[in-house]
Amino acid sequence: MHAAPIEELIEQFESLPGIGRRSAERIAFHILEKMPREAVVKMTERIREAKEKIVLCSVCQNLTQEDPCKICSSEKRDRSVICVVESPEDVTAIENTGEYKGLYHVLHGALSPMEGITPDDIKINELLLRLNDGEVKEVIMATNPTVNGTATAVYISRLLQPLGVKVTRIAHGIPVGSDLEYADKITLIKAIEGRQLI
Amino acid sequence: MHAAPIEELIEQFESLPGIGRRSAERIAFHILEKMPREAVVKMTERIREAKEKIVLCSVCQNLTQEDPCKICSSEKRDRSVICVVESPEDVTAIENTGEYKGLYHVLHGALSPMEGITPDDIKINELLLRLNDGEVKEVIMATNPTVNGTATAVYISRLLQPLGVKVTRIAHGIPVGSDLEYADKITLIKAIEGRQLI
Repeated sequence: MHAAPIEELIEQFESLPGIGRRSAERIAFHILEKMPREAVVKMTERIREAKEKIVLCSVCQNLTQEDPCKICSSEKRDRSVICVVESPEDVTAIENTGEYKGLYHVLHGALSPMEGITPDDIKINELLLRLNDGEVKEVIMATNPTVNGTATAVYISRLLQPLGVKVTRIAHGIPVGSDLEYADKITLIKAIEGRQLI
Repeated sequence: MHAAPIEELIEQFESLPGIGRRSAERIAFHILEKMPREAVVKMTERIREAKEKIVLCSVCQNLTQEDPCKICSSEKRDRSVICVVESPEDVTAIENTGEYKGLYHVLHGALSPMEGITPDDIKINELLLRLNDGEVKEVIMATNPTVNGTATAVYISRLLQPLGVKVTRIAHGIPVGSDLEYADKITLIKAIEGRQLI
């Protein structure tokens, strides 16, 4: 029912994660009805600039403007430990805690037989190459506590066993500040299994 | 915490309606991590093209690729009735019913003393100019059933009284298929006030 350029605009936004048809329409009409022409030009330039300037760090594979990235090139970071995550957003989340001082490795996904994602499709090889010089003593598997994330953690830990690197998994349990009675069964089991001395 | 181009990308999406910080981050990382460069270029071109090609119809003020728009220039539409709405999306909604055969007028907003939106800020003058030749017999006020939408309907109906044009308001009542007990008080009052003979 919309004119072709409006329809194409809606489709572009509908293809982004978390945006349905109604939201895409709302955004398209906002751009056409409310945004000044210059603001639209500026928006499209910002999108292209970001896509051009942001690359993968050749060491940790995180998104970065400089290669190697700030974390990989920082002298303040503990180079003996690498935290392996699925996505760049996970790095942001851990960095925001301000507590972790080691390095990272971004896999850009997790193994998934169902979706046909094999070890060659994620950045596992790049991780192995980083362990060659023996500087790294511990690899923390911080992939998501999902079936795919856990399978990926197990797969990588087996790969690393012959290298003599300690491989650990982040703890699963009851989130701090939440109510025990609302925790799901698996989380509760993990919390009890992972109990520690006070 | 993000590199400047990533932060600017997130801010662009955060400025769109219905997108919060987390959704904007998710979209930005999707663009940087998952979308091929060509798809990003295509997306920005589609946005600019739509903004360049889509203008306001000089008659009804709806968004259109041709001026006058298809509805205003159609010989199949009833030119004696104009349905006044707040936004282009309202036109789409009414057109989707397939029942209304008259013309439209898009105000691009509603009067709002709180937000400082006066009659000069919306397309009221353009509506008055359409009533000059006496062809229009009825104006249907289909602004939203909100305080601002109702105030706008009342304001315009008073403006049109001296012109001898019939001004009507769309009916408010219980939505078809919904449950009476869940209707809010005001809607229920409107539904009883607007009762009709069976």
